[in-house]
Amino acid sequence: MSPSQLRVLLQQVSQGEQGVDAALETLSQLPLEENLEFARLDHHRSLRQGFPEVVFGEGKTPRQIVAIVKRLEERGAPVLVTRVAAPVWAEIGSELPSAHYHALARLIHIDGQRDELSGSVGVLCAGTSDLPVAEEAALCLEAMGARVERISDIGVAGLHRLLNHLTAIRSHSALIVVAGMEGALPSVVAGLVSIPVIAVPTSVGYGASFGGLAALLGMLNSCSNGVAVVNIDNGFGAASFAASVLRSQGASKT
Amino acid sequence: MSPSQLRVLLQQVSQGEQGVDAALETLSQLPLEENLEFARLDHHRSLRQGFPEVVFGEGKTPRQIVAIVKRLEERGAPVLVTRVAAPVWAEIGSELPSAHYHALARLIHIDGQRDELSGSVGVLCAGTSDLPVAEEAALCLEAMGARVERISDIGVAGLHRLLNHLTAIRSHSALIVVAGMEGALPSVVAGLVSIPVIAVPTSVGYGASFGGLAALLGMLNSCSNGVAVVNIDNGFGAASFAASVLRSQGASKT
Amino acid sequence: MSPSQLRVLLQQVSQGEQGVDAALETLSQLPLEENLEFARLDHHRSLRQGFPEVVFGEGKTPRQIVAIVKRLEERGAPVLVTRVAAPVWAEIGSELPSAHYHALARLIHIDGQRDELSGSVGVLCAGTSDLPVAEEAALCLEAMGARVERISDIGVAGLHRLLNHLTAIRSHSALIVVAGMEGALPSVVAGLVSIPVIAVPTSVGYGASFGGLAALLGMLNSCSNGVAVVNIDNGFGAASFAASVLRSQGASKT
Amino acid sequence: MSPSQLRVLLQQVSQGEQGVDAALETLSQLPLEENLEFARLDHHRSLRQGFPEVVFGEGKTPRQIVAIVKRLEERGAPVLVTRVAAPVWAEIGSELPSAHYHALARLIHIDGQRDELSGSVGVLCAGTSDLPVAEEAALCLEAMGARVERISDIGVAGLHRLLNHLTAIRSHSALIVVAGMEGALPSVVAGLVSIPVIAVPTSVGYGASFGGLAALLGMLNSCSNGVAVVNIDNGFGAASFAASVLRSQGASKT
Amino acid sequence: MSPSQLRVLLQQVSQGEQGVDAALETLSQLPLEENLEFARLDHHRSLRQGFPEVVFGEGKTPRQIVAIVKRLEERGAPVLVTRVAAPVWAEIGSELPSAHYHALARLIHIDGQRDELSGSVGVLCAGTSDLPVAEEAALCLEAMGARVERISDIGVAGLHRLLNHLTAIRSHSALIVVAGMEGALPSVVAGLVSIPVIAVPTSVGYGASFGGLAALLGMLNSCSNGVAVVNIDNGFGAASFAASVLRSQGASKT
Amino acid sequence: MSPSQLRVLLQQVSQGEQGVDAALETLSQLPLEENLEFARLDHHRSLRQGFPEVVFGEGKTPRQIVAIVKRLEERGAPVLVTRVAAPVWAEIGSELPSAHYHALARLIHIDGQRDELSGSVGVLCAGTSDLPVAEEAALCLEAMGARVERISDIGVAGLHRLLNHLTAIRSHSALIVVAGMEGALPSVVAGLVSIPVIAVPTSVGYGASFGGLAALLGMLNSCSNGVAVVNIDNGFGAASFAASVLRSQGASKT
Amino acid sequence: MSPSQLRVLLQQVSQGEQGVDAALETLSQLPLEENLEFARLDHHRSLRQGFPEVVFGEGKTPRQIVAIVKRLEERGAPVLVTRVAAPVWAEIGSELPSAHYHALARLIHIDGQRDELSGSVGVLCAGTSDLPVAEEAALCLEAMGARVERISDIGVAGLHRLLNHLTAIRSHSALIVVAGMEGALPSVVAGLVSIPVIAVPTSVGYGASFGGLAALLGMLNSCSNGVAVVNIDNGFGAASFAASVLRSQGASKT
Amino acid sequence: MSPSQLRVLLQQVSQGEQGVDAALETLSQLPLEENLEFARLDHHRSLRQGFPEVVFGEGKTPRQIVAIVKRLEERGAPVLVTRVAAPVWAEIGSELPSAHYHALARLIHIDGQRDELSGSVGVLCAGTSDLPVAEEAALCLEAMGARVERISDIGVAGLHRLLNHLTAIRSHSALIVVAGMEGALPSVVAGLVSIPVIAVPTSVGYGASFGGLAALLGMLNSCSNGVAVVNIDNGFGAASFAASVLRSQGASKT
Repeated sequence: MSPSQLRVLLQQVSQGEQGVDAALETLSQLPLEENLEFARLDHHRSLRQGFPEVVFGEGKTPRQIVAIVKRLEERGAPVLVTRVAAPVWAEIGSELPSAHYHALARLIHIDGQRDELSGSVGVLCAGTSDLPVAEEAALCLEAMGARVERISDIGVAGLHRLLNHLTAIRSHSALIVVAGMEGALPSVVAGLVSIPVIAVPTSVGYGASFGGLAALLGMLNSCSNGVAVVNIDNGFGAASFAASVLRSQGASKT
Repeated sequence: MSPSQLRVLLQQVSQGEQGVDAALETLSQLPLEENLEFARLDHHRSLRQGFPEVVFGEGKTPRQIVAIVKRLEERGAPVLVTRVAAPVWAEIGSELPSAHYHALARLIHIDGQRDELSGSVGVLCAGTSDLPVAEEAALCLEAMGARVERISDIGVAGLHRLLNHLTAIRSHSALIVVAGMEGALPSVVAGLVSIPVIAVPTSVGYGASFGGLAALLGMLNSCSNGVAVVNIDNGFGAASFAASVLRSQGASKT
Repeated sequence: MSPSQLRVLLQQVSQGEQGVDAALETLSQLPLEENLEFARLDHHRSLRQGFPEVVFGEGKTPRQIVAIVKRLEERGAPVLVTRVAAPVWAEIGSELPSAHYHALARLIHIDGQRDELSGSVGVLCAGTSDLPVAEEAALCLEAMGARVERISDIGVAGLHRLLNHLTAIRSHSALIVVAGMEGALPSVVAGLVSIPVIAVPTSVGYGASFGGLAALLGMLNSCSNGVAVVNIDNGFGAASFAASVLRSQGASKT
Repeated sequence: MSPSQLRVLLQQVSQGEQGVDAALETLSQLPLEENLEFARLDHHRSLRQGFPEVVFGEGKTPRQIVAIVKRLEERGAPVLVTRVAAPVWAEIGSELPSAHYHALARLIHIDGQRDELSGSVGVLCAGTSDLPVAEEAALCLEAMGARVERISDIGVAGLHRLLNHLTAIRSHSALIVVAGMEGALPSVVAGLVSIPVIAVPTSVGYGASFGGLAALLGMLNSCSNGVAVVNIDNGFGAASFAASVLRSQGASKT
Repeated sequence: MSPSQLRVLLQQVSQGEQGVDAALETLSQLPLEENLEFARLDHHRSLRQGFPEVVFGEGKTPRQIVAIVKRLEERGAPVLVTRVAAPVWAEIGSELPSAHYHALARLIHIDGQRDELSGSVGVLCAGTSDLPVAEEAALCLEAMGARVERISDIGVAGLHRLLNHLTAIRSHSALIVVAGMEGALPSVVAGLVSIPVIAVPTSVGYGASFGGLAALLGMLNSCSNGVAVVNIDNGFGAASFAASVLRSQGASKT
Repeated sequence: MSPSQLRVLLQQVSQGEQGVDAALETLSQLPLEENLEFARLDHHRSLRQGFPEVVFGEGKTPRQIVAIVKRLEERGAPVLVTRVAAPVWAEIGSELPSAHYHALARLIHIDGQRDELSGSVGVLCAGTSDLPVAEEAALCLEAMGARVERISDIGVAGLHRLLNHLTAIRSHSALIVVAGMEGALPSVVAGLVSIPVIAVPTSVGYGASFGGLAALLGMLNSCSNGVAVVNIDNGFGAASFAASVLRSQGASKT
Repeated sequence: MSPSQLRVLLQQVSQGEQGVDAALETLSQLPLEENLEFARLDHHRSLRQGFPEVVFGEGKTPRQIVAIVKRLEERGAPVLVTRVAAPVWAEIGSELPSAHYHALARLIHIDGQRDELSGSVGVLCAGTSDLPVAEEAALCLEAMGARVERISDIGVAGLHRLLNHLTAIRSHSALIVVAGMEGALPSVVAGLVSIPVIAVPTSVGYGASFGGLAALLGMLNSCSNGVAVVNIDNGFGAASFAASVLRSQGASKT
Repeated sequence: MSPSQLRVLLQQVSQGEQGVDAALETLSQLPLEENLEFARLDHHRSLRQGFPEVVFGEGKTPRQIVAIVKRLEERGAPVLVTRVAAPVWAEIGSELPSAHYHALARLIHIDGQRDELSGSVGVLCAGTSDLPVAEEAALCLEAMGARVERISDIGVAGLHRLLNHLTAIRSHSALIVVAGMEGALPSVVAGLVSIPVIAVPTSVGYGASFGGLAALLGMLNSCSNGVAVVNIDNGFGAASFAASVLRSQGASKT
């Protein structure tokens, strides 16, 4: 029940066209969602975020992806589909002329109406094999309206590479730090900065990385303050969290 | 080598009291830390954070804790010791007259000089058994200068309890959400807000929680956007991360 | 906002004491919980179940347990507290004169107003070491108004013991089957009956049972149809589920 | 030894054609199965259930599947083969003219004689990637004679979608709730209903879902009452269990 | 229904005291266990094994152990109770005057009527910390009527210690090999003999032994032929299996 | 140093052709293997077993397999290669004209000189998907000279199928019991017999079988006496162990 | 800032061309890396090691590998790329005419300027399936300037094979011991020598090796002194560590 | 058979007191160990190492420890007992007057004859809670004759602390690096040095360290070259390995 429908109901009560008991009955029968929509649960929120939904492409057929993208595109908002393998894009690209495909990040993107987020995010990456995950994070953030700086190949095995970028690293509102193998980079970075470090473990590594478990546990057990962790290889999840930090900062300024 | 010592060196070069080669040799021998200190790696940082160190009390003897607390107290900064069991406090409390002990959170605290952080943090807690972890987070945040609102016993088994506090929950700059068992609360909360949700799994649960593993994995796999996770039962870690979010917000305002 | 308050509002609109816009504003501000309560989310449900809450006693102090039990007791409904160790009961028993303590099941129970459930549940138990979990299930079911038959010590190592009770086993509406070690009993039972088998793994066993993991995995992988599983040692969880089956049956009859 | 053979033996004893000792010896030698068959262990049961066997297609060659299906079809009962990949069906479909193949659920089905089950089951599904498992559950239930309502895409990240269907959800005798990632949906649903919730974890998710382990543990640790769990991706197992609940309800009515 | 009862029934049929139909009905109603008992499922077996039951003492109260031992003792068969801690024995020893307690193996034993088993078993033990498990195996075997040779402290770190006993080791019908840490001893032994090697992992070891998991996995993955494995620390299980090998050998001779 | 070489040395010493010191030096320098060979470590053993080596085909190239088989074949002993996929055999079969390929068991076999083993082994199999592993065990045993009876499709979900074969099952010297999913068959069988039960878990099953882990843990935790376990899917390992039992029995007869 | 640039700065100060304050400011602004480079963090080190970088080929595209190899080759140092599958090499080999590809070890190598390392390393290998990992270790060591002896197929199932090579094994400065399955070889070897044993677990094995976990845990729990472990299948890691041992020895001589 | 006994045998052959056949028979009968001893397997080795055995105190009774220590002390060699809890020492200290007890490292030590090892070892420690493990390593090394430098509290959260000691760290022949939580310190250190880094994970940490598993996996997956790992909390194991490196270096010098 939309506010205007509710207004009609109240007007009918006001004008005696409908009795109190009948109106009470009608209101009691409102499905819960109506109540929730009525309370504008998601209304303001999607406007504020400018990002109604991001599609997880893995396990979807090419046909399903085309259908979903077209439906989202009609709304005018930006569209993001993550985890789209190159052969899938090869098959459907011609049907989505307004879309861009980022091969490294395996991402489909269609630009759309959205606000700029205040502040900026540094996306740090330990090794070149971690780049697809880092790039997924960076592109998602840019699609969400954030400014991003990419700093790559600064793994802890060569500490000077990291220290060289320290000033740049410290200049951001939040950091996304992507690393596989032992996943030590977020701990070292967090020891050098005072901004939030969002750690992303990757599945890159030899046998006992167990698909990224080693890096995940390492990051969860960080001895440095100010580290929180998202799922293995989940660049998009880190981007979403970083965007929520920027949004919250923007909100707290006003 | 402090800036003033460096100035002396340069003056000596300037006045011919020391040759270029000798000065070059001296500078080459600078230990790395001198370089780093020189670059003021930690100087401004500890001033800005107002929190030089938090002590992990577990596995330390009562004697060690007393010694560390007294040393930190002399610096005038606030002191926090986490994971101090009640019997340990019973033994050492009389020696630390300025300290407060929070039994539920197992925390020793001594107030000290620190800045107020802008914004506020909601600390949400699924069940009463999760309270020690939530209280550790809340008290640490308060000690770090943040305003905190505690909202407890809002587990997903009774959804109306959560929805009842939705307006309050949405009013904060960041949320810490503490839950054991299946750890579903952060997902549900993150679906209803647009601010960062810092999820803390607890070790509360029946056998197959495996010491909090179930909640940890649940939170890492959240289907909602804007969730990041810290270690099991690590209320302090969540507080540190939330403080870094507030600090970053404060910084981005100026 | 209760139905009667809503009626007042509508009457005011009806009588012109309040304008449509003001009423619309008031309704928009309704906290979500009010909406939910208004929709009678939990009202009928707790009446129908006769069981508002079961307390998980583990990790609660004796003082907390006394306080919670007294508060629940005042409502007149039955009270159940699970996982209460004998020393805890020894300390608080005298303060809870109306309560009974079941040492084997580590359960505090106070009788109260509740409906009888139709049908009955067989609680089967593989070995004597699994009895505490089985007894927790049986006592909880009885407290919830169900009839229960206990059949113990029928592990698969001596198949004739199980087969001997086959007629009795088949006479129930649902079965709870409790077993540790390899947890094979639910599979064997489910192959012999056509009623639902609720499997409860226990932590009983040698080293490689890994705290009940072996039995849990065994039950989840049952090759027999009609087996579902609850958490390790969670007799109460099995009882709750069995009660929901009986309730659903009762409901579908009318 | 069939009842008629036993009758012959007893008649021979009755008529003095065979001595007591010889008859005793004969009866002692009865293989155990004869005793069991004689006790009609499975006779009435398969008649009552109307479902003699469901074939697990995974790991069977196309030739084996054809042979098994034809043998089962001759009995006149319905036939179900789960986990049949599309290429396998492409190879064998023409040989099984009476069979239907459901591509999404990877299921072969041949209708046959069976009773209708009383009551109905709601099959709830968190995300579109979980649909194959949900559809396997729904189709198996329908093949077993149950009425089914499918409610999809109601994951906890958008709570209003779930609440919108609450009345429909509450109208069933049992619920199957399918979810991947953190698997929180069964907990939330079970907190809102009083009927049995059969939880099915799926292997859908990022790295640290570990092939569905995260959802499995989450569901086993549910803080809500009335949840039991089946194996990862095991839609058929959930259907079997739900059917046993309906059957048990039907039986308890008579 | 015992054989003598069955004889009565047949005699009644033979003498016309009972009709064929009535007798058929009676036989049809025989509970399954009666059939099984009638088929002497367990009768000959317990006579042949001379060991009706071994009691798992862990998790039983002292009172329960006394009661069980006394009941078993009355039958005249030998009694074994495993995993009885010293304090439990201190409490109950005086009530069981005919019992012996083996402190290292934590075993209660009462001698009784049993056959000697042909052949012998070597019980090999890698380190002194593994002795409690090895001794449990050796004592159980002796109680079951087997001859045992104990060979201890022959871990693979000092290969000559093992090679020194090679002739003795090869003289047995079966070997039980007990080892913790990496559990390599069974592999090395099995490479040197052609008799069955029953491997017992123990929970002895540093952190990454994970309670015996390392030794267990090592033994399951043995590159030598002729190794089978029992549960962690399960000396009794190894003894039972070794006894079944000896019994089978004895049986195959006749 | 072979015995004949040693004899020459001693003769030289005896005849004064070599001094005591020189001989002592020669003997001191004997490589350890010479000593071991001299002690006939493996000589009698390979004669007695009639099986010098079984080749693990997995991970070997077709060329390597051909070369190894030809070398082994020249010795006249039987040859076994396990885990040979059908495409590999298609490529090399024509080069090994004396070899037989068993497609189900993925086994190459060439007959050769070997003793018959006394006694026989029952190879039991829970489901048809477990047949490849069971057949590997059966064929390896036959190649090693053992008599084998195969009993298949007797999983615990239909207990009567197992009980039907009880007499046959009890007639063997040892049993190999192969099962996937929850792996309950060995426990049930071992409760009904007094001969050794060698349990083989298979990787057959839904998600939470975790590649056979569920069945493996189930078998290790068997509540029945007389069960020992080999690696997942390791039919050959079970056969080797069973053969060692038969050999030991044969040896203990003489 | 390079030493020569610093010299220029100091000369300017010395000659009055730049004031002390300006020079101080310049030095304060030095990025950290400049400081570090200035301190010759990596300069001497890469000269001394002669091995600036080894490329992990897995997960890189053929194009990326060609580009990286060409860049490294220009520096004149030796080039190593590990984990390059044969099809990748087939595609790019013609573009890298100076490179050699080792198919078994999946390694690309280009010779270059490097020092010889003193001492030698024995690379021991349990089974032929472990050879790829052992060969990766051996080839990497040779590329790094070490002398290597390969000793293969000496698994613990046939102890005499190992003992036969004992003198050769003891002659080296360090040992790399590669083994899959239970991974017992390093323990046995370390018990026979007093030089460092670097253990490399491989992923070779049946189901319960869990991708090398069994061997990894076995090696970490070695009961022998002088064993340290690297990641599963990580031949390169073992080679790097062994090279550091040789380098350290060479250094400690001077 | 000792060399002198062998000499007597050869003399008897030489002097005709014993025939060649009889001598051959005698030599054939030599138990394997005699051969091994004769080959001086352990003779020179224990002399060279100066350390015949280190006792693992955990799980041994106070009486057993006293007995073992006294027996070892009589040989004149140094004695080390690891993992001796303070209460055990309180009970037995007075019986071992020549022994020293190190409370932090839980170590009993009696000095004895041993060689000095050339070179030195740096023992680095991340946090104060890791000190017991680091101190066990340092004391064991000193007892084995090595020079040790302890550098503590240099965790990666404060990088400057580590960099400050870089020159000292680089001066050693080998490093032992002890760390709990995420265990990142060995990676960072190994990136800065070219000597062997022996990594020791500790069990220090919050919930998801899982008893040191996080640090263990982190160290095994190190992205830096030259890292090898020992068991969790195994300071003694690291010391043994480091000593073998020093011994090997000493040997390669001569």
